[in-house]
Amino acid sequence: MGFIPKNIEKTIEEFSKLPGIGQKSAARLTFYLLRKKKQDVEQFGDTVRQLKEGLNYCPNCQNMTTEEMCGICQNPDRDPSVVCVVEEMLDLIALEKANDFKGHYHVLHGVISPVDGVGPDELKIAELTERVKKGGIKEVILALNPSLEGEATAAYIIRYLKPYDLKITRIARGIPVGGDLEYADSQTLKRAFEGRMEY
Amino acid sequence: MGFIPKNIEKTIEEFSKLPGIGQKSAARLTFYLLRKKKQDVEQFGDTVRQLKEGLNYCPNCQNMTTEEMCGICQNPDRDPSVVCVVEEMLDLIALEKANDFKGHYHVLHGVISPVDGVGPDELKIAELTERVKKGGIKEVILALNPSLEGEATAAYIIRYLKPYDLKITRIARGIPVGGDLEYADSQTLKRAFEGRMEY
Repeated sequence: MGFIPKNIEKTIEEFSKLPGIGQKSAARLTFYLLRKKKQDVEQFGDTVRQLKEGLNYCPNCQNMTTEEMCGICQNPDRDPSVVCVVEEMLDLIALEKANDFKGHYHVLHGVISPVDGVGPDELKIAELTERVKKGGIKEVILALNPSLEGEATAAYIIRYLKPYDLKITRIARGIPVGGDLEYADSQTLKRAFEGRMEY
Repeated sequence: MGFIPKNIEKTIEEFSKLPGIGQKSAARLTFYLLRKKKQDVEQFGDTVRQLKEGLNYCPNCQNMTTEEMCGICQNPDRDPSVVCVVEEMLDLIALEKANDFKGHYHVLHGVISPVDGVGPDELKIAELTERVKKGGIKEVILALNPSLEGEATAAYIIRYLKPYDLKITRIARGIPVGGDLEYADSQTLKRAFEGRMEY
């Protein structure tokens, strides 16, 4: 594409590397930025450039933070004896937005997936066991995705945590709120029945 | 969202300013970048930062370029006597990719749209008239979008170019290749009939 200035071509290329953004969307985004003020474009670039600057894992929950310890673990109003295990920080964000959960988290940064070459050692499972070993944790809530990989990871974690004196739970599966029974798959319906609660 | 590091929060915010990217997609893109190597993320940031660096309009066709004159106008193999007028650089790119058009272009950088406060003076129409006035142009092809704004802009340009001795054409409207007659709107069908060609 010799008829496009190098700057533009390179930006389109970078955008099209992102997931879900094809060549056409990448061009559209680039030309959107071209119409913006230079200052705004530079701010975007600088922000992305600094994304990983000073980021590290919270030594307690493995959440990402720029501080010594993450905001949740630092918060004295939260209960460190209940730990909710999630796959990704995105899940933590979703739970924090939706929930009134006031315990701590543990971020695995992935799930066991032999197909993608991800074994238990690539995840923060050892760190979770360490945390439990230290004591003070009464309940571990597994909030993993109801996928094959999520189930396998849950099974693996449960095996490692079984010896310790704590409650292990997992979040409920069932019909999503606003969902339609008619369109629910049979596995979801089965789980919804199993998890039924008394009025 | 005090539980997310500032860097991450700011990147999500910047992404969500882009058209068609909501809060959730922005978070997804940001966390995708977080899993990438620091070097790759910095390269993305730097590329975007430099997007507008040294960019200016080609004095001939108003295409964007980092050089004195754009690659198309510099190309001695292209015919400067035929000028294809487009709304945006994206249109030029689409035409260059699809077409074997070997003439020159003229990029208006928009269309007349009173609703958006865009009048003829905001566009590169005066530059087009100047070009025609200088002589040497035999045909002007209007390749504007078949929208109300596109039609209005075409009408405006035609009025200004009428006095000069040149052919003014517009690209054909009709059924798109691979399209379905059954689903075509009546305006398109009408135009397709008007523009019918002999075998």
